[in-house]
Amino acid sequence: MSLKNIKVVLVSPIYGGNVGSVCRAMANMGLSDLAIAASRPINMDEARMMACHATEILDNRTEFPSLAEAVADCGVVMGATARRGLYRQHARTPREWATKVVEAARTGWAALVFGREDNGLTNEEMALCTQIIQIPTTEEYPSLNVAQAVMICCYELFIANGSYEPLQEKSPEAPSDLRERMFVMWRDSLLRIGFMKENKADHMMHGLRRILSRGALTVDDVHILMGIARQAVWNAERGDRNSENKDGEQMTETH
Amino acid sequence: MSLKNIKVVLVSPIYGGNVGSVCRAMANMGLSDLAIAASRPINMDEARMMACHATEILDNRTEFPSLAEAVADCGVVMGATARRGLYRQHARTPREWATKVVEAARTGWAALVFGREDNGLTNEEMALCTQIIQIPTTEEYPSLNVAQAVMICCYELFIANGSYEPLQEKSPEAPSDLRERMFVMWRDSLLRIGFMKENKADHMMHGLRRILSRGALTVDDVHILMGIARQAVWNAERGDRNSENKDGEQMTETH
Repeated sequence: MSLKNIKVVLVSPIYGGNVGSVCRAMANMGLSDLAIAASRPINMDEARMMACHATEILDNRTEFPSLAEAVADCGVVMGATARRGLYRQHARTPREWATKVVEAARTGWAALVFGREDNGLTNEEMALCTQIIQIPTTEEYPSLNVAQAVMICCYELFIANGSYEPLQEKSPEAPSDLRERMFVMWRDSLLRIGFMKENKADHMMHGLRRILSRGALTVDDVHILMGIARQAVWNAERGDRNSENKDGEQMTETH
Repeated sequence: MSLKNIKVVLVSPIYGGNVGSVCRAMANMGLSDLAIAASRPINMDEARMMACHATEILDNRTEFPSLAEAVADCGVVMGATARRGLYRQHARTPREWATKVVEAARTGWAALVFGREDNGLTNEEMALCTQIIQIPTTEEYPSLNVAQAVMICCYELFIANGSYEPLQEKSPEAPSDLRERMFVMWRDSLLRIGFMKENKADHMMHGLRRILSRGALTVDDVHILMGIARQAVWNAERGDRNSENKDGEQMTETH
């Protein structure tokens, strides 16, 4: 499934930098259709700089005399507002709306509408919206930069669309028997290098199990830990052999 | 619970505008502690302009010679990366980590670390991080503007912190008996104004119920709908009376 049927509509943006940042945010999240309604002249150098590798979206933008014309072909029309006025009680968060937008975009066009940097959307423009989005913020500073607001909405759509494959550990979690063989090796090793005495061993191993069980240990992790135990024993035995050869110099070789 | 124990650390940021945008994003989401590690000279006019009403965060930023010093007092240290390299398989999304960071910040300092605009974090800096964050993006363009990356992470923390009170309809959802009284009024009204005949009434009312049941109807909504039905009947009756008085002019008054 793709987000290509969802257009981002900016109403009368003022700053080219914001328009460029919107393009980059859209590209990061897999949207590509940018419409400008009631456009004013903007600084295109700033727009191009902030768009970074998303200038294609900037160059392919469409312009419309009014919001009504920009969303004329759209079923679901989501309007974003930070205002706490007339529409407050009907607003929902981007996360609550995301699934609805993604589903609507399967069969037709949907729009996300963002208002002017200084004045947001007029009541007439809000009336064109079938749904109102309000992004969760502090009460103290509810007004987001327009490109930040676009990013949060596009990010929620990207996740709702299931486009993201969660990262996987290549190495699987170690099974219990492998983990236990590792703990046996550590016990032998810590006794062998003189870190603990037999009568304290159970207590120390309990502490070590606690430390190493805070997160999942992978097969790779366990092999690293086994290697450390093996190497410590090897050094201890080498020290012993040297000690037999040259009496009294047991520790020097291991530094 | 507050997010005041979570610091945002920027490593060697280049652009003042980005630093300012970071401040605004933090203020939107209730964070306030900004640290700059290995700072370079930035354009403070741009920073101030993009910080908008969050210049206090900009002015109160702390600076450190290195990342190690910036996070020295932090338990959990989350590093954000877009790279698909050494750390990829251990990375998790901001949403997956958010609860962990919020819990850690109850009892001590936590840090969110973001790298250079051009080169991200070095391997040495990544090694200082206890966890790695990767923001879900398209494969085609995984590199976010640094302020956008900060915004998504802070937004997820704000939501995980439960700071946001979902908006509530002031008017409760209408109970069934009120809704049914409204449908009776509409049925009478639609018959009275001649929109439908008695033999089609059940079918039409079924359609109307479908339209009006797509979303929850509040008590306020039902009162509006009742008012419309009542007014339509009132007009129809007025038309009848006029018709009795001045024969043949039934419809003119209602235009």
